[in-house]
Amino acid sequence: MARSVSVVGGGVIGLSIAWRAARNGWSVKLYDPSIGSGASWVAGGMLAPLSEGWPGEESVLELGSASLDRWPEFGKELEAGAGVDLFTSEGSLTVALDGADAEDLRTIAEWVGAQGRDLQILNRAEVRALEPMLGRGVRLGLLAVDELAVDNRLLLQALQRCAVDAGVELIGEAVRSLDGLGTDQIVVTAGIASPALWPGLPVRPVKGEILRLRARPGVTPAPGRTIRGSVHGRPAYLVPRADGIVVGATQYESGNDTQVTVAGVRDLIADAEALMPAIGEYELRETSAGLRPMTPDNLPLIGRVSDRVVVATGHGRNGILLTPVTADATVALLEGSALVEAKAADPERFEKVAR
Amino acid sequence: MARSVSVVGGGVIGLSIAWRAARNGWSVKLYDPSIGSGASWVAGGMLAPLSEGWPGEESVLELGSASLDRWPEFGKELEAGAGVDLFTSEGSLTVALDGADAEDLRTIAEWVGAQGRDLQILNRAEVRALEPMLGRGVRLGLLAVDELAVDNRLLLQALQRCAVDAGVELIGEAVRSLDGLGTDQIVVTAGIASPALWPGLPVRPVKGEILRLRARPGVTPAPGRTIRGSVHGRPAYLVPRADGIVVGATQYESGNDTQVTVAGVRDLIADAEALMPAIGEYELRETSAGLRPMTPDNLPLIGRVSDRVVVATGHGRNGILLTPVTADATVALLEGSALVEAKAADPERFEKVAR
Repeated sequence: MARSVSVVGGGVIGLSIAWRAARNGWSVKLYDPSIGSGASWVAGGMLAPLSEGWPGEESVLELGSASLDRWPEFGKELEAGAGVDLFTSEGSLTVALDGADAEDLRTIAEWVGAQGRDLQILNRAEVRALEPMLGRGVRLGLLAVDELAVDNRLLLQALQRCAVDAGVELIGEAVRSLDGLGTDQIVVTAGIASPALWPGLPVRPVKGEILRLRARPGVTPAPGRTIRGSVHGRPAYLVPRADGIVVGATQYESGNDTQVTVAGVRDLIADAEALMPAIGEYELRETSAGLRPMTPDNLPLIGRVSDRVVVATGHGRNGILLTPVTADATVALLEGSALVEAKAADPERFEKVAR
Repeated sequence: MARSVSVVGGGVIGLSIAWRAARNGWSVKLYDPSIGSGASWVAGGMLAPLSEGWPGEESVLELGSASLDRWPEFGKELEAGAGVDLFTSEGSLTVALDGADAEDLRTIAEWVGAQGRDLQILNRAEVRALEPMLGRGVRLGLLAVDELAVDNRLLLQALQRCAVDAGVELIGEAVRSLDGLGTDQIVVTAGIASPALWPGLPVRPVKGEILRLRARPGVTPAPGRTIRGSVHGRPAYLVPRADGIVVGATQYESGNDTQVTVAGVRDLIADAEALMPAIGEYELRETSAGLRPMTPDNLPLIGRVSDRVVVATGHGRNGILLTPVTADATVALLEGSALVEAKAADPERFEKVAR
């Protein structure tokens, strides 16, 4: 008889674990009252662990790199299984609008290079040659040819399709307590709702707002790569889509709501225009807000917390990026082994997590 | 046997004519594939003909005043018939942010006063005493105590309810030609679609974008009155709602689409913040765009164009304001008389209108 597992939470993390476990022969039930509607739906889909690297954050870079390396194969399988095109751009370009940011880009390039990953510094002319729609305020660029972007909503659709095809049973119910689940194993993948299911998980909501723009006839073409930059100290990014651009993202520590604020939209538009002055021509197709499940150290929580329970949550700003490595690590845990690349994400690093 | 009339177009104009005609004993069919979904749905609901007055535009002021005077009674009937509260504010306050605008406000106050309507000039301190949330850049105010604002979406709901209760038959079909309509009389109330139904009507679409904000807990209270102002030469307004504020509106001569642009939202937010600095705290609940049916002289087209056909269209930015007077004038035309206040709106002033 097949081993059975309940996956509690149907974002990209839960769906990918359910899919991979089912493919490995597990009997899988996935619980979520509204599958694919949370942070995974709102996300930008930028896969940029290298250009977000920073000296001292070795563990974050290693985990992110391990997942980025898995993405091409992981994505290809989903594309084949669901008949969609997930990848919306190859390469990312981080730009500096002032001298301090330019210094930071050189620091990142040097440090990430020392970790064996390729980042290139581009001067102003090289940046403009690559992405001529960018603003004249750009002083320096950091090109990461290996980084990617995916359409997170097509990803959700593909994961759901592949999960169902692999035999996952999707159950549209909320789980209030793990006690009622009768399976051999349980995986908690409930994002910000995870601490209510397993005591002591250090996950807090960090609200983020994001815009979805659609090209109108005759607009300036979108960048070919993901564009990242810092505007007035706020991190901003433009992620290409088949039909437009996603602009992200604000960050608020306070608040547990998903209301989009006037000030948030104002800032996002201002930052997007600083990166790409002609972006005002685009249609503002959608504004939305999500709640990122953040941890104190910006690493997720992936690990076994009891004989029956594994957690895979707390992915913060990097849920889409970390999906493949989290799926691999969690299925390994279910099957009694461990993925070495995910060791740093073990929740045992936090004392207060119940066991 | 009752006289019969087809009303082609189910915005506020068509619905109010249908309602009033049915109440007068007409057998009324109203045609619209999507009742209440056009410019009437997008509108702000500001009723401000006095503070929009300008020397030389006597006819516009007279028509607007005639309709404003009808609004309290007209609205009361609808409120009673549909059980809703339509009026969201009493009084409007137009503010000047620079010396040129202050001069304009004095000109308006003087000229409108000479037409026998009451407008008051307020100094900076008086403005702040009345609406303390307004920006410190306000130099002068123009108070119109008689002006009103209505919730245009509740208005549509109330009109539809009262029309049906009065016996109007709502038909969810598009009318491509008046030829197929078998009623004794026909009224064309199709906004920008009107010229396709009656040749030569000088109505063109002028796109406008508008924001709907909702109060979040703890936000700075919304103004008690409609606030109008000019920011960087762009007219802007804040219209109170039961749950927030409507911010309008952009104006584009080009384009026949209802896509909301990034630049439009950027400008609306910037202008709203110039009027009320704390407005960024509000939720950006909705962005939308509509197509105003504009005429060359900013007066609507209300008149008989043939023995069987009356038109009531081209209301531009003032469709909600002009609803009561248009309903009265059109029903009078159907019944063989004429409303003197609406004489200036007769389409006979344009030679090319077919007869």
